[in-house]
Formats: sequence, structure tokens, C-alpha cells
Amino acid sequence: MTGRFIAFEGGEGAGKSTQARLLAEALRRRGVEVIVTREPGGTAGAEAIRALLLSTEGEGWGARAEALLFAAARADHVERLIRPTLARGGWVICDRFLDSSRAYQGGGGGLSDDDIRTLHRIGSEGLLPDLTLLLELPADEADRRLALRDTNGADRIGGRAAPYHARVAGAFRRFAEEEPTRFTRIDAAGSPEAVHDRIVAALDRMPSP
Amino acid sequence: MTGRFIAFEGGEGAGKSTQARLLAEALRRRGVEVIVTREPGGTAGAEAIRALLLSTEGEGWGARAEALLFAAARADHVERLIRPTLARGGWVICDRFLDSSRAYQGGGGGLSDDDIRTLHRIGSEGLLPDLTLLLELPADEADRRLALRDTNGADRIGGRAAPYHARVAGAFRRFAEEEPTRFTRIDAAGSPEAVHDRIVAALDRMPSP
Repeated sequence: MTGRFIAFEGGEGAGKSTQARLLAEALRRRGVEVIVTREPGGTAGAEAIRALLLSTEGEGWGARAEALLFAAARADHVERLIRPTLARGGWVICDRFLDSSRAYQGGGGGLSDDDIRTLHRIGSEGLLPDLTLLLELPADEADRRLALRDTNGADRIGGRAAPYHARVAGAFRRFAEEEPTRFTRIDAAGSPEAVHDRIVAALDRMPSP
Repeated sequence: MTGRFIAFEGGEGAGKSTQARLLAEALRRRGVEVIVTREPGGTAGAEAIRALLLSTEGEGWGARAEALLFAAARADHVERLIRPTLARGGWVICDRFLDSSRAYQGGGGGLSDDDIRTLHRIGSEGLLPDLTLLLELPADEADRRLALRDTNGADRIGGRAAPYHARVAGAFRRFAEEEPTRFTRIDAAGSPEAVHDRIVAALDRMPSP
């Protein structure tokens, strides 16, 4: 028996971590073993790399070093947590995965999408989620939600300017259009409960393994 | 005017760091601007990655994450130190570079040589040294020199077993045979001064830029 691998993707403020938690609770009520994890991070090694990536000290990282660090964190996460959980039949719900690297580090970030995918092939043998839930929010609603967060805590990536985030949202939408089977686009407007109901409905439409 | 990029390669105990220092002093006496650096490391970011790589805490790194971390450290080193130094006409002498990744992380380490070279293309746009000096020592002489070092300080890579080091020496020799123009094999037996004289002779045979 093999578990299922579900990733949440989308821009800042779309509600990924809230929805990951609500989905895990719903699955546990159905008797499914499920872990909730996040990227970059999820294992001791990957969290150490995350700390390097998000540090605002020094000059920061160039686009190439940054993409390699994200791929290294993902390699550790996949080898040490995601694959072992799936192998024993558990489900994995991950807050961001490869498509965040493609949206944030690819394109305008400096590397080609092919290069980001090549790093994923070498680092993680190309593992992809069974289902990627893309939470989509109009830009003004995302801005409003982000303004409610403590902006003093903005890290290197979350703290970037609005045009950057609009470009990222466009990249996610393009990925979903290119791979309509792997992606499900979710309207992330409304209450957490309303969005959760849309996600459960999408999951129930997912083909059995 | 562009500087020259010289890398020292070889197993533990072959004298790379001593010879790098002696060569830099000789070049400075000739009026050349030269920096001596090392891998993994050489910049603040790359040294932070080095600390993650060499830590003996926790489970250590899998072969894939390890190769990505080495490539990330190299990308930072190349972008922030090596290329800017070469661009202003300085020489760079580096203690280990790409070929150490190929010898240590490639092959028996888990990744193919093609994958290691692909990481280098993506991370550092494939920059190669103008000359790679491979210091070669018979295995028993390398063992004798290593025994004189403080073995309590052995890190994750230096502390590995003898067959591992023999395999690494064989890989370096094969690389040198495959690229006889880029590599110069140096007999590393004898006094530091004798080895240094062989290196200066090799450098004087190097074609002008």
C-alpha cells in the first residue's frame, strides 16, 4: 500500500498552511495516517538549509546558489521524510513543493524552468505530488490578508514587492494550465471553511491509486 | 586582461594547501596579484554551507543532497569571489574545485559524473580552471602523512576508510587521463620545496592566455 502525496501551492496569503492543517484533520477523521510538512524544511537538515536561505544577513544568495539550496533541502526532505511516509502507506500534505521553486526561482529569478526541473531530477529523482492544489486569490485580497500579518517578520522572500508576487501568481497559473491533471485550481476567497469544502470536493474527485 | 585560475586537486595528505600557499608566494614575488581560496568555502555563504556539510551531527546527508550543497557552495564562491578576481586580472589559486566533487560525490558516492557536471553547469555556468594540478602520492605515503595529523579533528569526509580514499585517487587519475590538457599530474613525494619546484616548472610550461 502506498500513501498519497498532496501539495499546496500559491502565493503569500492564499491560506496554504491553514488549509493544509484543515485537510489533515479531515483525513484523520477518515482514519488516514497523515503528516503535514512544509518547504523549504520538514527535516532537520532541510530546516538548517531553510535558515541559510531565509537569513537576511550578508549579501544574500545569487539565483543559482539559491536554486541549488532549495533543491538540496528538497532532496533531504524527500529522502528522509516524504518517501518513507508514502512507502508505509501514510499520506503527505506539503505546504509548497517543486512548483514554488519553479514559480519563485525560475523565469525572472534567473534560471530556466528546464534547469529547475533538472535539479529536481538529480536531487529527488523527479518525485511529483499525486495532486497539487493551487490556491488562487485576487491580488488585492492577497495584499489585504498580508497587511494583517506582522510585517516586521517579513523574510527575504515574503518581503519582496508586489510586481514580483504578481509574476509568481502568473507562473503558477501557467503551470496549472500546462498540467491540468496534476493541478487543481482552488478559489481561495471566502472563509477558511468554504475553501476547505472546495478542497475536500477536489480530493474526492481524485482517481483512486 | 584576465587572470588565471589554478586548482589543486588530490587526496587527503597530498600537500594541496601547503603547495597552494608556496605557489601564491612565488607568484607574488613575480608581481602577480593572487588570492588563495578553498572549497567548499571561500566566501561567507559558501563557508556557511561548508559548516553544514562537514558537521558530524545528526544523520548526515544523502548523496544527492550532499552533491547539491557542494554545487551551491561552489556557485556562491564562483559568483562572489572567483569570477570577480579573474575579471580584474587577478590570479585565483583554489584548494579543490569541481574535480573533487566528481571524485568524492560521483561514482561510488551515488551520482553519475554527468549529473555532477550538470550541477556545475547550472550552478557556475561550467567554469573550469585554466590548469588543474593533481598532486599524486603513493597510498602508503598518504597514510603516513595523515597519521601525523590530529585524527581527533577528522571530519565527515576526511575520516572515511582507506578503500574510499583509494577509489578517490583512482577517479582523479582517470580524470587527468581523460583531459590531459587541463590537468597536470604532479609527483607529490619528497620535500615541500621539491614538489613546489615541479609545480613552478609545470606552470612555466602553461601556454600564455
